[in-house]
This record gives sequence, C-alpha cells and structure tokens, in this order.
Amino acid sequence: MPRPFVSLLTDFGARDVSASICRAVVLGICPDAQVVDLSHEIRKYAIRDGALALWSAVAYLPVGVHVAVVDPGVGTTRRPIALRAARGDVLVGPDNGLLLPAAGRLGGIAEARELTNPEYRLPVVSSTFHGRDIFAPAAANLARGVPFERVGPRLDPASLAASPLPEPRVRPGSVATEVVYIDTFGNLKLSALVGDVRAALGDPVGRTFLVRIADGRELRLPWVATFGELAAGEALLYTDAYGRACIAVNQGDAAAALDLPDGAPIEIVAP
Amino acid sequence: MPRPFVSLLTDFGARDVSASICRAVVLGICPDAQVVDLSHEIRKYAIRDGALALWSAVAYLPVGVHVAVVDPGVGTTRRPIALRAARGDVLVGPDNGLLLPAAGRLGGIAEARELTNPEYRLPVVSSTFHGRDIFAPAAANLARGVPFERVGPRLDPASLAASPLPEPRVRPGSVATEVVYIDTFGNLKLSALVGDVRAALGDPVGRTFLVRIADGRELRLPWVATFGELAAGEALLYTDAYGRACIAVNQGDAAAALDLPDGAPIEIVAP
Amino acid sequence: MPRPFVSLLTDFGARDVSASICRAVVLGICPDAQVVDLSHEIRKYAIRDGALALWSAVAYLPVGVHVAVVDPGVGTTRRPIALRAARGDVLVGPDNGLLLPAAGRLGGIAEARELTNPEYRLPVVSSTFHGRDIFAPAAANLARGVPFERVGPRLDPASLAASPLPEPRVRPGSVATEVVYIDTFGNLKLSALVGDVRAALGDPVGRTFLVRIADGRELRLPWVATFGELAAGEALLYTDAYGRACIAVNQGDAAAALDLPDGAPIEIVAP
Repeated sequence: MPRPFVSLLTDFGARDVSASICRAVVLGICPDAQVVDLSHEIRKYAIRDGALALWSAVAYLPVGVHVAVVDPGVGTTRRPIALRAARGDVLVGPDNGLLLPAAGRLGGIAEARELTNPEYRLPVVSSTFHGRDIFAPAAANLARGVPFERVGPRLDPASLAASPLPEPRVRPGSVATEVVYIDTFGNLKLSALVGDVRAALGDPVGRTFLVRIADGRELRLPWVATFGELAAGEALLYTDAYGRACIAVNQGDAAAALDLPDGAPIEIVAP
Repeated sequence: MPRPFVSLLTDFGARDVSASICRAVVLGICPDAQVVDLSHEIRKYAIRDGALALWSAVAYLPVGVHVAVVDPGVGTTRRPIALRAARGDVLVGPDNGLLLPAAGRLGGIAEARELTNPEYRLPVVSSTFHGRDIFAPAAANLARGVPFERVGPRLDPASLAASPLPEPRVRPGSVATEVVYIDTFGNLKLSALVGDVRAALGDPVGRTFLVRIADGRELRLPWVATFGELAAGEALLYTDAYGRACIAVNQGDAAAALDLPDGAPIEIVAP
Repeated sequence: MPRPFVSLLTDFGARDVSASICRAVVLGICPDAQVVDLSHEIRKYAIRDGALALWSAVAYLPVGVHVAVVDPGVGTTRRPIALRAARGDVLVGPDNGLLLPAAGRLGGIAEARELTNPEYRLPVVSSTFHGRDIFAPAAANLARGVPFERVGPRLDPASLAASPLPEPRVRPGSVATEVVYIDTFGNLKLSALVGDVRAALGDPVGRTFLVRIADGRELRLPWVATFGELAAGEALLYTDAYGRACIAVNQGDAAAALDLPDGAPIEIVAP
C-alpha cells in the first residue's frame, strides 16, 4: 500500500518557520505521509499566483491531499473548505478561489465540504494561522483515512468564491487574454491555453502573430517550438510545458524587456 | 514504531548546498529519520532570530532531535552541545544561547552534554562547518538510538551561554519590551508574550493602548482579535499564533510603515 | 534494504513549482525513494555554479542517483545523459559539463549513456522542461532498479562537453587560479584546491601570501586555520570545508569588500 501523499503550497516564505510547522503538523498526525512542498514563495496574498501554481503542479502529482494557503481573509468569515475532485484527490484551503483551477484540472469538483469538525483541528485555533490549526490537521486526517464526509457539512459548489484566473475571449482570428504570472525567468504566462489559440487561429507553431498591448504597441512575434530557433534577446511566443500560451525573450527577462506587468491585457491576432 | 524525527534550522541559505549536506549526513547515518527543514534562511549570524524561530516551532514538532546552527563562533572555543529537554527532545547546536528558549518551551533542560565523542563526528572535522561534521552526525546518532550520555561529558546548565531573547519588564500598568523579530510580512514581534501583557494590563483584546517608542513618538493602537476588524493600512496590536505580543499594519508592512527596526524598545501602557 | 537515494539540483528557483514537480515525478515512479533537494537556487543558467555545488555535495551523499539541471541548451541538440561513476552513483542531466566535476569526485566515469529510451520518459516531452519529462523519470527508473544499460546507447566519455571548472596553473612558488563561486556569506571560492597550493607553495596554514589581482592590486593575506584568529573585517585565505582555497573577510562580505567578481583571476605567491 503506497504512503499517503500530501502536498503543501503557501505564501508563508521560506525564512519563517510557518510552512515547516504545517509539514510537522501533518507528520505528527499522519507519520507515514509523503509530504512534498510545492512552493512556499508564492507572492504574498496573491491568490491568482497560487491558483496558477497549483493548477500547474497537480497534473504531475500522485493522487493525494493538496493543501494550499494564500489567505488574505484569514480571521474573517471566509470558509475553510475541502474539495473532492473527480480524479480522487482532495484540495484543502480557504474559500477564496485558490483551489478552483486545480479542481478543474483534476476533473472538476465531485463534492465540497466546509472544514468545521473540531476533531480535525488543533485544540486551539488562532485567528491568523489556519494553515497550522485547520488546514494541515484536516489534510493529515484525510491522508490517514478519515472519510471525506466527516470533515464538515456539504457545500453547494455554486456557493464557492470564483476562480481568480480570468477566461480568455476566443473569437475567430483573435484571442484576448492577459498576463497572469511572471515566472522566475521573467517569462510571461497568459490566461490563454494553446488550445484557445488553436480554436481562434489554428496551429500557431512556426507562424508569426501580431501581439497588441494596451498602450497601443504592436509586436510581431514568432511562435516557436524551441527557444534555440532564435538569437539571444529576441522576443517570442511559445507553448510552455503546461500547454499555456506564453511570451518570452530568449535567454532574457521578457517582463523587463517588454515592460509588461502582471495583469497586462494582450491580444493575439493573425498579422 | 515511529520513524525518528530530526529537524534542522540554520542560517546557511537555500542557495548553497550546506543545509542539504547536513540533511544527507543525517540520512546516511539514520536512513529511517523523518527529517524536516524548519528554515535555512535565518538571517546570517543572527542568533536571536534563530532562537525565536526554534522557540516558535518546537511546540508543534513531534518529540525528536532538533539541530540548530547559527554559529558566528564556529572554529573558536565555543562548545558544541546537546540539551535533553523535559519533554524528551534533544536540542543540538552551538553553546551560544541559540537553543535555550526552545529548551524552556520544552519544559526546561533535564541534562546538558558537550559533543566531544569522536565516534559521533565525521572522521575529519573542519573548522568552518560543524553543522556537517559535528552537529548533524551527533543528531543522527541520537536519532538512531545512541544513549544521550554517550555523546560527551555532562555540562552544568548554569555554565551555558545566555539566551539572546531579552526578558520584558512587567509592572502594573506597563510592559517595557522590544522588537525581537520582523517576519516576512513586516509584522513586528515583541519580546513580551500576551501573558506578560495580561499580568501588567489585564486582558488586552478589544482595548486601545498607548505605545511609546524610543524617539518620543506615542501611538494609540487597538489590540484586535483579527486583522479584519480594521481597514487596510491601519496599525494594530495583536497576539500572534504563538501567544506573542506583536505590532502589525493590516495588509501592510509595519516595520516600514512605522519605521521600527529590529531591537527597537517599545513600552505598552494603558492610555 | 535501504531506500534508493535521489538528489535534485537545479536553477529552477524555489518560487516556481518546477522543482517540486520533478520531486513528485520521481516519487510517482519510485515511491520508496529518499529524495533530497540539494539546491534549486543555483544562479540561472550558471552551469559552473551548479557544477561546483554538485561537486561539493556528492562526497557527503549516500550512493544514489543525482539529478542536476542547469540547462540553457534545453530544446537544442544538446544530449540528455547519464553517467555511472566509479563509486556506484549515477549522475543524470544535460551534456553541458555540469556533471563532470562531480563524476570526477566520485572516482571518474565508468560508463556514459544517452537518455533516449522513451520507456523512461514521460509520455509527452516538452521542449522546455526536460527536468520533468526526461531527467526525473530516468532517475526514478534507475532508482527503482532499471539496469543502467536500458536508458539508451553508450556514449564515448571523450565526446562529452567539457567541465566548466577551469584547472588552476600550479608552478613552484605560484598558483594561478580564479574566483569560481561566491557563496551566500560573500566568501570567494577559487578553482585551486589546498592540494594545488601545497604542491606549489608547501603547507600554507599559518603563513602569509601575496595575492595578485588582475587590476594590479597586491594583497598580503594570512592563511588561517580558523576565522577567529583575526579581527572582524580582516581579509584572509583559508581552506574551506571541502578542501578548496578561498578568500574571505572575517564576519564580512569578501566579494563586496575586495571588489572581486565571479571569474576574477587571482595569483597566489610566496611574499
């Protein structure tokens, strides 16, 4: 029988011990758990960054319990939730949209519950650290076999806070999208997937597109299969390793070079 | 039988491989160990930051062996030590005060020993990396069952270097304390616990206090149960998730907004 | 039977989830693996930094499979390789010199192979994330017992890209070397080992040397056994915990204080 798998993703930072305490709380309750830290360096309070990171990771994780905490509303009335996904995973975290893209990637929500059962919380629940006091204990208990229906009452999925990832607008000949994440290389990830681009414009690889930016600039960018096709410093479109449309500069920092911040609207059209 | 638990906390940084080498040395000697990295991003040479981080974490860790290395005196005559705490844990690190607050949180020191036994060191001990050569091997050997008294001779706990965390001065109507840590959100942690505040001023939650700062400023700050009670940008007092008195700015960086550095003296009085 | 040991070293950064996905891919294929992250904060694209970090770590790791990915050539024709070292380890990564110093430290290359077998890759191989799609699956399969010869055809070790670490020039009375790494303390690591210094100048500890810098400066630096022999702020030569010649400033940042960048040529001579 395989060890239960638990992943952790937060904006707690690697300097503070908060993330490690969550890991230790999981191991204290479920000593056999295989715990993997996805990232604890999500930008502070950036629900969208966390949602995208979790979406990116879950398809490559074993079926398990995935805890995510980017939680500007901790201590308010926002609900602590667990979502059972069609693939069999359980997602645990705050009801602020953070878990929804990942749930979609895992086949959608089979059942949602509110984490209210005090048996699966630490004895004292602080108002500022639900990662330690509510989410990690719930996840560890689920990992050690507590049935999903024990964590608390059922929630209507329609009542959950919406996903922070905007949907691209896909029309024949045009994809209106926006920058949703800037990775550590400075690559710009867009809200559009390559499937959206294919639906609007056909297979993009090997062609050149017009990229319209809000300030009126228009860039002509090739959509390449590999960065190595271009000289260092050249800007390009590409499909990232998760099937997402992205803008990059070969061996450079596209966010800086193109002066495109997080959230910048982008339209991709045939030239 | 549960796997032996070993935690690691250092100022080695995540970029260098030093911290990972300590983890690997532990696993080489005690392959069954459950090793948890608490943090390797403690501010360089900041014994107090490390002591506070370890104090914060240990109450949430399973009983185990906890290694901490913030060690500006490596290569000098400062002693390498192990402290058996009343809860059953062993703390391993340099004799520079780093381990004392955590030992107190675990019920106090039951027995102290100097790590002198060459059997529980690597064959060659460098003068700059005792984490790898002395502390990790000692911890791993203790984790795999070597009796505590084998690591070296007994030490008088009174001979140990003092704790780097200053005691607050608690008087009726006043707590004189100081900033002892600035977390990654910019929250200011004080040397006073909420118990100290209660002893001086009664239950603080829901009341407003005068906060006197060394430069003559006086702030009127509410002590809130949750940040959400105030508007974004407002300063406040609160009890953090470890029972410590703290100053924060809701959704902001209190250290920057209030211009209060690490070590700043603070007096909390009734208005 | 011990759990198979897999180490990971990349320049992916701790913020992105890429490194964690590699870990999860390993655990998905080889759930028993003991996976240790050596560092994911290697400077972006800095093959030499990665090569030195891996060289530093491997001697302290159990025999296992060690994955390293600093891979500016991903998506080009550079080959994905595995090197079986004399000690019994396997090194997995791109053919760009990254793995060679570590292979040397582990006794040299016993056999080299190209990772071409699609059975040991993920079903879809992206052009930008071979860590996830080729290297992690190959390592995990080797860890779970797939014979080395199954991963792909044999390579002539002489055909591999060269090591990024320059050899020092050792002559009687002089070692011509260069700065090859600046650690998180600002210490300058040189390409020369203390054995090179001994061959040129005899045992250096306790003596003073002339250090010639490219811009014409000459420093007189003592070679000390421990930093504590000098006052804070004084510059010094020392042997680091890996047997490497280094320049440091006691309790300071030598790279900044001495204005010596990565790659700076350095000559050490008797005064």
